[in-house]
Amino acid sequence: MIDKSSELPPAGPLRWRDVVETPAVLIDLDIVERNIRRCQDQCDRLGVAIRPHIKTHKLPLLARAQLAAGAIGITAQKIGEAEVMADAGIDDILITYNIVGDHKLARLRRLADRCRLTVVADSAAVVDGLARTFASAKDEIGVLVECDTGMNRCGVLTPEEALALARQVASSAGLRFAGLMTYPAPGHGNAACEWLDNAASLIRSAGIDTHTLSSGGTPDLYAMQHHPSLTEYRPGSYIYNDRSLVTAGACTVEDCALTVLTTVISSPAHGRAIVDAGTKVLTSDLFGMSGYGMVLERPDSTVISLNEEHGRIEYTSELPPAVGDLLRIVPNHACVVSNMVDSVHLIRGEHYVQAEPVAARGRIT
Amino acid sequence: MIDKSSELPPAGPLRWRDVVETPAVLIDLDIVERNIRRCQDQCDRLGVAIRPHIKTHKLPLLARAQLAAGAIGITAQKIGEAEVMADAGIDDILITYNIVGDHKLARLRRLADRCRLTVVADSAAVVDGLARTFASAKDEIGVLVECDTGMNRCGVLTPEEALALARQVASSAGLRFAGLMTYPAPGHGNAACEWLDNAASLIRSAGIDTHTLSSGGTPDLYAMQHHPSLTEYRPGSYIYNDRSLVTAGACTVEDCALTVLTTVISSPAHGRAIVDAGTKVLTSDLFGMSGYGMVLERPDSTVISLNEEHGRIEYTSELPPAVGDLLRIVPNHACVVSNMVDSVHLIRGEHYVQAEPVAARGRIT
Repeated sequence: MIDKSSELPPAGPLRWRDVVETPAVLIDLDIVERNIRRCQDQCDRLGVAIRPHIKTHKLPLLARAQLAAGAIGITAQKIGEAEVMADAGIDDILITYNIVGDHKLARLRRLADRCRLTVVADSAAVVDGLARTFASAKDEIGVLVECDTGMNRCGVLTPEEALALARQVASSAGLRFAGLMTYPAPGHGNAACEWLDNAASLIRSAGIDTHTLSSGGTPDLYAMQHHPSLTEYRPGSYIYNDRSLVTAGACTVEDCALTVLTTVISSPAHGRAIVDAGTKVLTSDLFGMSGYGMVLERPDSTVISLNEEHGRIEYTSELPPAVGDLLRIVPNHACVVSNMVDSVHLIRGEHYVQAEPVAARGRIT
Repeated sequence: MIDKSSELPPAGPLRWRDVVETPAVLIDLDIVERNIRRCQDQCDRLGVAIRPHIKTHKLPLLARAQLAAGAIGITAQKIGEAEVMADAGIDDILITYNIVGDHKLARLRRLADRCRLTVVADSAAVVDGLARTFASAKDEIGVLVECDTGMNRCGVLTPEEALALARQVASSAGLRFAGLMTYPAPGHGNAACEWLDNAASLIRSAGIDTHTLSSGGTPDLYAMQHHPSLTEYRPGSYIYNDRSLVTAGACTVEDCALTVLTTVISSPAHGRAIVDAGTKVLTSDLFGMSGYGMVLERPDSTVISLNEEHGRIEYTSELPPAVGDLLRIVPNHACVVSNMVDSVHLIRGEHYVQAEPVAARGRIT
C-alpha cells in the first residue's frame, strides 16, 4: 500500500480564510502527519501493530497515509464504511461490530470476496449468522471474539464465555477463530490487556490457536505499558485529536488537526456572541465536559450552548467579537464532527489545500 | 402550489420490517398527514398564516404537502436549504438567519432571482451587507428585523433597537422593511407576541409600514392565544413530533411520525441490550430529559447511553431482547435525526412506501 498516492497533498497558493464558506471543518495536514508519526512511533515502542480506526476521518486519503506510515490494515465499525474503503483499494479491514441480519450478512459475504476481511462476534447467535453465510465461501473469514473488559457495552463477560465462543467459531465451516478483541473502558487499557491475556491462555490451553489480541482507544494509548501478548492496537481519534483528548492529557491544543471554522453572525449583547456553527457541525457531544468546544482566537470565551445552526459564545473580555469575525473551534469530539459534513477542507497552516469529500460519512448500516 | 404532485404516495405491498436495513429512520405518512391537518386547523383557528420550517424534514415532498394543505410559503435556516427547496419549485421562502459574508450574499442574490425571498437582520452590519448586495437588484428583497423576545440568542433587545433597524432597512435601496420576526423562548410564545406588538406599534408610529409579525416554535403552538396582530407562525417539529413534544404535552406518542428502527446486536448481560443506533442516528441531544429516546416495543426500557454506533438499553422485565429483534425508538428531537441520514424510509402503518433522499440534509452554509 505504500505508493505515491499515499503522500498527502501539498499546500496551495491561497489562504483558507479567503476561500472557505462557514461553518466548515478544517483539517490541518501538517498536524495530521505529525499525529500519524507520533502514534506509529508509540506502537512501534510498544511492539504492537497498528490498525487505525477510520471512523475518525472517514477518508480513503488518510487511511492510505496511515498504511503508508506502517499500519497493517484498518478498522471500520460498519459494513458501509468498509465498502467505501474497499472501493478505494484498501485490502485489509477489520469490522469491530456484530453483523446481524440477512441483508447485512449478504453484503459481508460480497465484501469478503474483494478484501481480506475480519469480523467480531460476542454471542452464539452472531456466530450462527456468520457460519450460515460463510459455510459455502471459498475462503474462511477470520472472527475475533469481542470481550467486555469493563466498557459494559458489547462483549462476552468472562474468559469462559470467550472460550465457548472460540470453540463454536473454530468448529464452524467457513469461519476461522482469529483471536480476541476489546474496546477498553477509558483509563483501563492496561487492565484490559491482562483480561485478554488470561482469556487467551484459557483458550490456548484448550488447544485452540489464538493469534490476535486486539485493543484500542486513543485516550489510553500514550499511557500503555508493554504487554508481550498484545498483537495490535486500534486507535482512531489520535489522527485529529480533540478537546476531550486535550482535557485527558493525551495531547496539546497544538496537536488538534480538526477545527470548525465559524463566522460571528450576531453580537447582540455584551458578553454574548452567536456563531454559525451549532449541533449540525459540532454535535451535542459533551463527553463529560462543560461547553461545546474551545475557541482558539478567544481564550476568554465558552461555547455555552448550541442549537442546530447557532452556537452561543459567552466571553469575559471587554472586546466583543464583531459580526463577520472568523473564529476556529476545537470540538469536544472530532469523530462525530467528521460525520456531519459532506466535505472537509484540507489546509496546511494558513494555506488552503483542497476540499475532500467525506466518502464514508453517514454509512450507518 | 396545490397540484397532484403534492399528494403523498400510497402504501406499497411490502411490509417495512421485511425491507429496511437498520438502523433506519422511518416516517409514517399517515401520521404526517394528520399532523399537517391538525396544525393547519390550529393556525386557521388562531387566524394566522402558517409558514412551516422545513428544517424538521428537509424533504421537498413534505414541503409541497404543507403548501397543499394551506401554508403560504416555507421557512429555512440556511441558504443551502433554501436552494434545495427552490430547485424543487418552491417559490416563497423566508430564511430566518443573518446572512453574513461575501460568498453567502452572492448566493443570496442569485437565489432571489428565482423565488420570492425574505430574510432577517438583527444588526446594522447585517443590513449593510444586504444593502450592498441588493442595491442594484431589479426587485427589492424583504427584510424582517429579528427580535430577541427572551430566547437570548439572536435578535435586537428592545423595540427601540427594532425601530432603528427598521429605519435603516427602509432607507436602503434594494431592501424593503417587511416586519418583525422572533423565535420565542419555549413556554413564552404569548409574551413574545406582545413584545412584537409593542415594537410594531412603535415602528408604525414612526410612519413605517409593518406588515409581517412572525413567530414560531411547535412547543407553544397548541397553547397559543389569539393575537390579532400576529400574521404568521413558523412551526417545524409538529410534522413529525418527538419525545420532547410528548414530554411537553404538545402531542401523544401516537402522533410521532418519525421513529428510528434498530436491531438488537448484543444481549450480553441481564438488564442490558445493545442496539445498532447510536449518536450517528439518534444524536446526543438530551433536551433536558434523561435517556435518548422511547422504545415503543419495550416500555420497560431506557436508552441509557449512546456511542457513535451503539445504543445501550436497560430494561427491567424478566424477558431479555434477543439478538436480531427489531425495536423502534422515538427520538428526543426529530429535526436533528433527519439531518443524520442520506435517506429516510416512508411508511404507512406496517406497509412500506419508498425510500426518500433527504435532499436538504447537511446544508450547513
